[in-house]
Amino acid sequence: MRELGLTREWEIEYAAEKDLPVEAGDGGVWSIDENIWSRAVEGGKLENPNYEPPEDIYEWTAEPEGETTIEIEFEEGVPVAVDGEAMDPVPLIQHLNEYAGGYGIGRTDVMEDRMLGLKVRENYEHPAATVLLTAHGALEDLVLTKNERSFKKGIEQEWSEKAYQGLVFAPVVDALDAFIDETQDVVTGTATVKVSGGNCRVVARDSEYAVYSEEMASFNTEDVAGIAQSDATGVAKYHGLQERLANDVNKAVSKPELTTDGGTGADDATTIETDE
Amino acid sequence: MRELGLTREWEIEYAAEKDLPVEAGDGGVWSIDENIWSRAVEGGKLENPNYEPPEDIYEWTAEPEGETTIEIEFEEGVPVAVDGEAMDPVPLIQHLNEYAGGYGIGRTDVMEDRMLGLKVRENYEHPAATVLLTAHGALEDLVLTKNERSFKKGIEQEWSEKAYQGLVFAPVVDALDAFIDETQDVVTGTATVKVSGGNCRVVARDSEYAVYSEEMASFNTEDVAGIAQSDATGVAKYHGLQERLANDVNKAVSKPELTTDGGTGADDATTIETDE
Amino acid sequence: MRELGLTREWEIEYAAEKDLPVEAGDGGVWSIDENIWSRAVEGGKLENPNYEPPEDIYEWTAEPEGETTIEIEFEEGVPVAVDGEAMDPVPLIQHLNEYAGGYGIGRTDVMEDRMLGLKVRENYEHPAATVLLTAHGALEDLVLTKNERSFKKGIEQEWSEKAYQGLVFAPVVDALDAFIDETQDVVTGTATVKVSGGNCRVVARDSEYAVYSEEMASFNTEDVAGIAQSDATGVAKYHGLQERLANDVNKAVSKPELTTDGGTGADDATTIETDE
Amino acid sequence: MRELGLTREWEIEYAAEKDLPVEAGDGGVWSIDENIWSRAVEGGKLENPNYEPPEDIYEWTAEPEGETTIEIEFEEGVPVAVDGEAMDPVPLIQHLNEYAGGYGIGRTDVMEDRMLGLKVRENYEHPAATVLLTAHGALEDLVLTKNERSFKKGIEQEWSEKAYQGLVFAPVVDALDAFIDETQDVVTGTATVKVSGGNCRVVARDSEYAVYSEEMASFNTEDVAGIAQSDATGVAKYHGLQERLANDVNKAVSKPELTTDGGTGADDATTIETDE
Repeated sequence: MRELGLTREWEIEYAAEKDLPVEAGDGGVWSIDENIWSRAVEGGKLENPNYEPPEDIYEWTAEPEGETTIEIEFEEGVPVAVDGEAMDPVPLIQHLNEYAGGYGIGRTDVMEDRMLGLKVRENYEHPAATVLLTAHGALEDLVLTKNERSFKKGIEQEWSEKAYQGLVFAPVVDALDAFIDETQDVVTGTATVKVSGGNCRVVARDSEYAVYSEEMASFNTEDVAGIAQSDATGVAKYHGLQERLANDVNKAVSKPELTTDGGTGADDATTIETDE
Repeated sequence: MRELGLTREWEIEYAAEKDLPVEAGDGGVWSIDENIWSRAVEGGKLENPNYEPPEDIYEWTAEPEGETTIEIEFEEGVPVAVDGEAMDPVPLIQHLNEYAGGYGIGRTDVMEDRMLGLKVRENYEHPAATVLLTAHGALEDLVLTKNERSFKKGIEQEWSEKAYQGLVFAPVVDALDAFIDETQDVVTGTATVKVSGGNCRVVARDSEYAVYSEEMASFNTEDVAGIAQSDATGVAKYHGLQERLANDVNKAVSKPELTTDGGTGADDATTIETDE
Repeated sequence: MRELGLTREWEIEYAAEKDLPVEAGDGGVWSIDENIWSRAVEGGKLENPNYEPPEDIYEWTAEPEGETTIEIEFEEGVPVAVDGEAMDPVPLIQHLNEYAGGYGIGRTDVMEDRMLGLKVRENYEHPAATVLLTAHGALEDLVLTKNERSFKKGIEQEWSEKAYQGLVFAPVVDALDAFIDETQDVVTGTATVKVSGGNCRVVARDSEYAVYSEEMASFNTEDVAGIAQSDATGVAKYHGLQERLANDVNKAVSKPELTTDGGTGADDATTIETDE
Repeated sequence: MRELGLTREWEIEYAAEKDLPVEAGDGGVWSIDENIWSRAVEGGKLENPNYEPPEDIYEWTAEPEGETTIEIEFEEGVPVAVDGEAMDPVPLIQHLNEYAGGYGIGRTDVMEDRMLGLKVRENYEHPAATVLLTAHGALEDLVLTKNERSFKKGIEQEWSEKAYQGLVFAPVVDALDAFIDETQDVVTGTATVKVSGGNCRVVARDSEYAVYSEEMASFNTEDVAGIAQSDATGVAKYHGLQERLANDVNKAVSKPELTTDGGTGADDATTIETDE
């Protein structure tokens, strides 16, 4: 198609000639893409990044009203039930698009960087994706370690960028998938989101894999797992030791003149004396 | 304090003895921390990760109702005005906490990984932070390059982790700040968010530094910047070339039996068959 | 041991009293650690980072002399043969330590950041590790895609840091391992290194999984895989498009005064006219 | 040039016709690129990744012989003197290319991923670059914090990839430069490398900004900076706490049959059994 050098104006004219349906509204004529995960709207007045989208561009999401909670159950990272009702993946997504869309969940208005280097303004609707990502993330927060959560962000970003580039078949994506799969063994349990007025936020989560000890979290005992609270003293003293040492050295070297007359330089290194 | 080995139960008893105020509600007795950016609630029944927080834990955010738009103006990354009214940073944050809090903006319920390795459930309220981060990010999407946006995510994550660890004085944070500062020269302009029912999302943004050409985005011309649409043909042909080559080689080596009858396997590997 | 508050001086005295062997040389008394992968030397005069280590601290590596080549064969990332002779992993490492050590391969003198925040100067000898990492990396360069090579660097860094921290049992390491394992399926073949005078560098590599087409690399044909050389024209034109656009916008906004008198500002945006 | 669809064979014929000089040797005819930092050789028999380069492709590096040490002095990250003799940047690089090249330093044989997706085998010579990168890195190891060293690796990788892509003018590179510049304030001092037989390794380094306390490193005192050695006990106990908790929970859930006879499984999960 690129070889034909078509412009959007020409395409609209052609569609009109041939009696092809083209969606239009207050914002002018726009272009629509849809798949099971989202509906995307671009073009017309929306090309002005400062033009606020009118309500009539939306089809999947209602104007925000009312509120409810939705409980999603996951098995090894995959959503398997909504509010206790087991569903296969495709019907589950379709159900959430309709149900959460009714509460106005899942609108995104974004300046998107296309692969060729241009920014394009896109408006998306994606109710199921918002609910599932919110719930899935909340369950991960309960069952993954801090280090997994932190490092996995970079993995997810790379995965998303490859997917956006249409390179899900790339060998690196197989390796990213292997990382993700390994972490999902324990992502089994439920997360509950509250949806209201276009807002979706987690309010509860539960899993037998929770890396969580209510006892330790509440400090109700003095000695858990062979660790006394006083052991944290040593952690606190060592915390940031190198950073304080670096700052003291830097201050002592950089401002030697301040330390000769009144000892206000290296001496006031508040905690560490390095005797250099 | 750690050296005293205090438990929360002991602390509550002590507070009761001494007639010190302790906040309590349907969820039991909980612990509150506040600063200009947020109010945090933990403890009591909230320690059960699956217990849905009751409304009475919230003080900064109202139950969602009504809707409005808020325009934030930024100069080199710093918010300087709200809806056209210039404000200094502290009053600006205070104003947004109250104004956006009235629309229920900025509630987060999260399992947090403490530095010592324990997960603790925290509920936060942070109306101004939500509005400012949403608006600032939207403006960045307009004025930064794709590469800056992508790489800056890792910078922000590291910055956040250092801040959470109380290490903002670390030398590495100075270097992260230098990266961030360099990018903010062009983050000047406005972003408008719509707040409604606890939801905050961007609906418009404007900047003279926009890396955006409405003309190029809409493909209304056949030749912009010396680049014809047909030049994209070459980009498309080369896109994913190495990944396709890798997959072809892999397939040819891994499944040699498929190549014996017609010689269509390994032989093709070096010339790349893309229409699989 | 930490609870005893021992100092190195005390330890040396104690060893002397009890007639325990302590290694010493021109650099004084030092501390040695050994495992199959490396021998580490620290302490004594070596604690001065600017003291050049004397030859007598080394036991695994000879003073550089002579040269040879060593061919390592890998199967799915694992070394299985040296110069055509099949070996099990442990004997293979032992052989390379001795053989490559004879050519002085694998000395590292480094300021190391200990977990508690202190820097310590360590001198290592690790002949087999140097040969295997060099050869393995060279083979990966031949069989992995650019994206795998680039992203895997971050994976390797995280893996190394976890290993250094003694956290190889951490869940995140299982996930890192899964990423790595997925990439190693194709790391089968040979790499040849030349060792001489303490230097080890790759000089040849071979694999049936090579993501390499000699024909394409040499541009001996005009049309390979349906891609003509002229298709690269489009790639070249689009390359850096957004970065050029960003710079032009920035220049036009930042120095408006330069554009009024002589058109030397926005106009000299060499390739892109954005008509903003 | 791309638009002409030239092949290497055609180029060689053309050069012959026009009497243009083309370098050739045992490995056939090859292509040479040179700048102040490196000399690159490709083509001819070198296109076979398994062909060992003959000595005659090298011009900047001698066959390894003899040994010496070279001391480089840096001011804020910039090399300013060699073996005590002050030099401007360009003469300094030229001197090191010649001097270290005489010891065979700086040969790299690599499969390189070109921007269009093809791998090409390149042989480089870069004596000054090897010496300067080795020395500079060693000085950084002495004066930067662990966190700066670790995070800077990702910064350097991104910088290198942008430079390779010819995008040093990109806005993201300005931000990467700002990060790097901020870290270089303390990279002042000397590093000494030993060059011998093509090998270059650091043997000494010195800086007044050293984040290093010989006293702390050698544990010669029992109490430095208000931290007793026994304080490390607490650090050791907490180290890996979350990872052990996660593994215990996982084991208890995954193998419930092991817990039925003695109740030693899931029940223990919350209290952490570490002596597995």
